[in-house]
Amino acid sequence: MPYEYETDGATIYKGSFATIRAEADLARFDADVEQIAVRMIHAAGMVDLAQYIHFSDGFGTAARAALQAGAPILCDAYMVSEGVTRKRLPADNQVICTLRDDAVPDMAKDMSNTRSAAALELWRPHLDGALVAIGNAPTALFHLLNMLEDPDCPRPAAIIGCPVGFIGAMESKDALRDANPVPWVIVEGRLGGSAITVAAINAIASRAE
Amino acid sequence: MPYEYETDGATIYKGSFATIRAEADLARFDADVEQIAVRMIHAAGMVDLAQYIHFSDGFGTAARAALQAGAPILCDAYMVSEGVTRKRLPADNQVICTLRDDAVPDMAKDMSNTRSAAALELWRPHLDGALVAIGNAPTALFHLLNMLEDPDCPRPAAIIGCPVGFIGAMESKDALRDANPVPWVIVEGRLGGSAITVAAINAIASRAE
Repeated sequence: MPYEYETDGATIYKGSFATIRAEADLARFDADVEQIAVRMIHAAGMVDLAQYIHFSDGFGTAARAALQAGAPILCDAYMVSEGVTRKRLPADNQVICTLRDDAVPDMAKDMSNTRSAAALELWRPHLDGALVAIGNAPTALFHLLNMLEDPDCPRPAAIIGCPVGFIGAMESKDALRDANPVPWVIVEGRLGGSAITVAAINAIASRAE
Repeated sequence: MPYEYETDGATIYKGSFATIRAEADLARFDADVEQIAVRMIHAAGMVDLAQYIHFSDGFGTAARAALQAGAPILCDAYMVSEGVTRKRLPADNQVICTLRDDAVPDMAKDMSNTRSAAALELWRPHLDGALVAIGNAPTALFHLLNMLEDPDCPRPAAIIGCPVGFIGAMESKDALRDANPVPWVIVEGRLGGSAITVAAINAIASRAE
């Protein structure tokens, strides 16, 4: 066994978060969201992520209250839903991803949109008061914003808007910030993704580090 | 529907890859691995990732041959195994993650190591000729290197070594590069993670863009 390394999970987490707090510029983040930002940075392995993370007022309070009240977590991708640490959830909350529903391919064709966007139509029965987590597809975030233009569409409690990439990701997150339909967190620009999104969920679910 | 955006998946992929090839410095990557690097950059949403991606000689050929021969893909986390696009796999390859096996918590305790590392002990029956994908835990990559110190341990065909983070990630990837037990790809330093790892798998599985 020539390789010696830290093998204690708690020590690894503690050391990781201490490194982030020593290196990252977290001054912008108030106590309500600082732990969320730290976990997002942790998942990215990049302290410079801090400058791209933006929260709307009241995001931390709204998102935590939703989970404590038993709200479901609606995820645009299985990489997001699979990453949620179930034992951190305060109310055994449902974690829902509708992407592989049998109806989705035909819905996408009918809508002339991606499967990621079409799958959100199946969120409607769960959407009222939910925590929404979009960590992959810009088309999903754009479609959600279009759904929320309808005043009869149920409102989620809060939106984690972190799609990643080169086509539409930046624009979809700017649109969420500008529309401001409910409290939100975004990673501005191209960065984002499932790991960062999962980290935000896990931080909202529990303040345990 | 006030938000207009690109809704065609194929156009989104094509535009994304074109942007990456226009902006990223890919000159170091030969034809055998260029598509793998491009997909890793795509998943990260960051063209600067290019400078941290390193392949050992023969990685692309070894990893593709393994999947075409029907090798399983062994993943350290469900966020990795869930991200693999099954229809891209050339031989309906098994995608295996042993992290939630009932035996793992006790094994971790006995080994004084993380569950991520302990779960790799359950890879042994599948390891010969496999494609290994470590996208989360530095302890898993270190433990694999220790397993491979034993000449009787079966050899995987290739290793995607992309754990992420602040404690051990950089060191574990440097150790893989230095030990060079089989062909490998790494993302040097703190960056890495499940999305980048999944992107590498999906690129190895098929050259389709």
